[in-house]
Amino acid sequence: MITYSDLGKLKSFSMLKKEKKENVKDLLTADRVKNSSIALGGGLKYNWAAMPVSENILSGLQALSDEAQLIDKYKEILSGKVMNTGEKRLVLHHLTRGNVLGAEVAADGEDKDQFYKDVLASIKDFSEKVRNGEIKGSTGKAFTTVCQIGIGGSDLGPRALYLALKGWAEGSGVKTLEGRFISNVDPDDAASVISDLDPETTLFILVSKSGTTQETLTNRDLVLKTLGSMGIQGYNPSKHMVAVTSKTSPLAKDESMLASFFIDDYIGGRYSSTSAVGGVVLSLAYGYDTFRKLLDGAHEEDCLSLGKDIRKNGALMDALIGFYLRNIAGYPATAILPYSQALSRFPAHLQQLDMESNGKHVNRNGEKIDYPTGPVIFGEPGTNGQHSFYQLLHQGTDIVPLQFIGFRECQYGKDIETAGSMSQTKLNANLAAQIAAFARGKDDENPNKEFDGNRPSSLIYGDKLTPEALGALLAHYENKVMFQGFIWNLNSFDQEGVQLGKVLAKKVLAGCEGDDLLKAYADLLI
Amino acid sequence: MITYSDLGKLKSFSMLKKEKKENVKDLLTADRVKNSSIALGGGLKYNWAAMPVSENILSGLQALSDEAQLIDKYKEILSGKVMNTGEKRLVLHHLTRGNVLGAEVAADGEDKDQFYKDVLASIKDFSEKVRNGEIKGSTGKAFTTVCQIGIGGSDLGPRALYLALKGWAEGSGVKTLEGRFISNVDPDDAASVISDLDPETTLFILVSKSGTTQETLTNRDLVLKTLGSMGIQGYNPSKHMVAVTSKTSPLAKDESMLASFFIDDYIGGRYSSTSAVGGVVLSLAYGYDTFRKLLDGAHEEDCLSLGKDIRKNGALMDALIGFYLRNIAGYPATAILPYSQALSRFPAHLQQLDMESNGKHVNRNGEKIDYPTGPVIFGEPGTNGQHSFYQLLHQGTDIVPLQFIGFRECQYGKDIETAGSMSQTKLNANLAAQIAAFARGKDDENPNKEFDGNRPSSLIYGDKLTPEALGALLAHYENKVMFQGFIWNLNSFDQEGVQLGKVLAKKVLAGCEGDDLLKAYADLLI
Repeated sequence: MITYSDLGKLKSFSMLKKEKKENVKDLLTADRVKNSSIALGGGLKYNWAAMPVSENILSGLQALSDEAQLIDKYKEILSGKVMNTGEKRLVLHHLTRGNVLGAEVAADGEDKDQFYKDVLASIKDFSEKVRNGEIKGSTGKAFTTVCQIGIGGSDLGPRALYLALKGWAEGSGVKTLEGRFISNVDPDDAASVISDLDPETTLFILVSKSGTTQETLTNRDLVLKTLGSMGIQGYNPSKHMVAVTSKTSPLAKDESMLASFFIDDYIGGRYSSTSAVGGVVLSLAYGYDTFRKLLDGAHEEDCLSLGKDIRKNGALMDALIGFYLRNIAGYPATAILPYSQALSRFPAHLQQLDMESNGKHVNRNGEKIDYPTGPVIFGEPGTNGQHSFYQLLHQGTDIVPLQFIGFRECQYGKDIETAGSMSQTKLNANLAAQIAAFARGKDDENPNKEFDGNRPSSLIYGDKLTPEALGALLAHYENKVMFQGFIWNLNSFDQEGVQLGKVLAKKVLAGCEGDDLLKAYADLLI
Repeated sequence: MITYSDLGKLKSFSMLKKEKKENVKDLLTADRVKNSSIALGGGLKYNWAAMPVSENILSGLQALSDEAQLIDKYKEILSGKVMNTGEKRLVLHHLTRGNVLGAEVAADGEDKDQFYKDVLASIKDFSEKVRNGEIKGSTGKAFTTVCQIGIGGSDLGPRALYLALKGWAEGSGVKTLEGRFISNVDPDDAASVISDLDPETTLFILVSKSGTTQETLTNRDLVLKTLGSMGIQGYNPSKHMVAVTSKTSPLAKDESMLASFFIDDYIGGRYSSTSAVGGVVLSLAYGYDTFRKLLDGAHEEDCLSLGKDIRKNGALMDALIGFYLRNIAGYPATAILPYSQALSRFPAHLQQLDMESNGKHVNRNGEKIDYPTGPVIFGEPGTNGQHSFYQLLHQGTDIVPLQFIGFRECQYGKDIETAGSMSQTKLNANLAAQIAAFARGKDDENPNKEFDGNRPSSLIYGDKLTPEALGALLAHYENKVMFQGFIWNLNSFDQEGVQLGKVLAKKVLAGCEGDDLLKAYADLLI
């Protein structure tokens, strides 16, 4: 019997609040660092040594995980229960990378595992034909560029993953089609991308689950009209566009598309990077085999996330410590700090994943809750951030918990030695130094040069940012956010908070219908 | 007589805390929107209608501004007092765009106003010769690309401004040299940029005030070695590099440089966008006249920031309301939300500007203080953010104040009408709708569809993102952050918080010198 109850009703939460608070400064030793790593998928590990959790607190977190039945609830998702309670939908993004439980999940009169496998097969077939030149543009030229048109989950995750693998592909000799992205309804976004595209060799991927997203349809029309009016002999823009959409959307019926790839209502936008939403663009850009490796890494992490022992389940441990920092230590924000330029847009993806999933004020039954939920998420790559906002992280008046990410090797393989060390060594020396500096601080007679320390941090690390590692990293955060949603008793899979703005924007476009306030603001802007 | 005292000692602060708190929902009307705009420079306006400030609170903020002598302290900066109290330096970035007070400022035995004017003249001369082909690369080809190598303030501001003007330049028919940026010591950053550069037509700009920045010197060496070893006939990489540095730095003595442009110790990195740090790359990319217009916009805003009436001084009003939200309403973060794809990296610049300036726990005399200072700053362009983290902003358990930015016209001039409206109109309809939705919220029987509202926001708006508008926008935030530093009695111009990490990173590179903890972390990573 699985019980869903608010955090305040858990005995283990009351117990945890009574546990003695710990200082990272006192806890952190070299031995603790060596004994605090948990294997994730894809060769990655999660290290929690610099988090303010004692043995007693860890026992308390384990008790909370057990009492709140976090793993059982994950299994509910995997077995196809209606876990998106607001929209009454299954939650099946794990199935897009492999069936973790082996359970049969049926919906819409079909085997969903088979459905996602069929989509994968169609992506494989199409992407190979494009990459080997069998499928060409309307003027007979092979495609060299793929341009995704989508917004939110149809943009942030796929874009972050595309950028994360660019150096790996070049360093590994994997053939690459250049990737571009148009998302914003600001016409300058499309204009900027179009300004250096060759229409004849570009394939557009139109991504909208509903087929009704205002920004995406607007940008489709803008692209088609702009390219179509260039007067290129024999050029037909509609032969340069594929769709990723649901079978029931208006786009699915658009016969002008070169091809269509399907998703369904059980894949939320922010969880769609491993579905066709990310799969088409990544398979076109780097080959289906690369995308398949990414899925394998994600699947491995999904399997590891099933363990009930928090000391062996990195996503679970990360989720529980994050909950502790938010609801007991009381920290309202978390920074994501990848020491990897390839992950430059990964924090922006996690910002959506986390804040859109758990930035909620009602529980899964739609009742108001009385404790803090999802934190503010932000971040930039290191070492860049060290020369920017780290000042506040080190010496500001608020404490911001930190999530570091690092890799032993670079991607391009074009590192050189200067001043006695390789750049990659300098990068990671900075990373190691920062964790120690944040945790330990430094005494000084001059308070302006004093560091209080006790800034909690974790570290995800691995040998290299490969497709497998990237898939595991993605799944780690998806599963972390899922577990935190369970702790807070939220539905992490809907997003009612975005609806009101859409309704009011339509009113403004329709002339405000007599709403003075909207008109006053529109008068400033339009 | 100007007095510097901690916030807790101000009578006006005690008075303000007693003022009745206000709900945005109750205050906001169409009339208030119409009557709450303040002119900034460059044709921009700042509107504070959706902020929770009543007439009484505004009077209290005016009293605080007067009691804390905010304008007098700004004049201290302009007249060349030692306002960077930690490093015992003047603070002269305003002089880089024009002498607001007309006061003579002397330091290092020279007239500083003249010094910055001379630098400008050298930028004008050099950039014109590069752009008209008089100065060529070592193989006789004209330069078509400029690549800045710098980090922190030598990267974030110049990069944000470069991106912000790209569409304007194309839409206005201004000749553009392509701009690229290398910042991170991660070797993949340089490898990625180099992978699609033509060495023969690329001019590198090496930017480091001290001439000792680890990342920047490492990337210089990496670029020189990589390009030098390509075996291009007649190619000499040292004839493709200029320096921006201080006269006393080791770089200033590097005679291999094609040219050098000087800054001094009185320009902090995060305030250096209008000095040679931003001026060289922007003048090369878009022409000196464009950069000069940006300076004019900044100068205009600097002049407007002198006004003592908070209702007529946008930077001052923004600073005071931000202080109110932080220290009386108690909100720990602020989101920057430009509805302009051109400003995609502007929030990252503001993140540094604000968090590095005011993320401090000691006052300007180096004594610990007992109130919150600078907030966490983050943001992404709209409408993209609407499909991402806005869920938390609308319905999360914490309130995050918002700063919107918008423009009536796009930059490229390639907008079209779809579904009855232009894309730019759709963009701004969304912006107007969001402000109203955040402020007013919406009742609903289903709490999952209920919006509490009362989310405070401001709006900076103008006709178009031109160089003048961009300069004013930059100066607005610089002056806002300066005023907030005065309110909190901080030195906003040093950054001791970045030192400890540098020291420890050197230890790791030197083999840790027996520090077990550093070694333990380094062992995970190196």
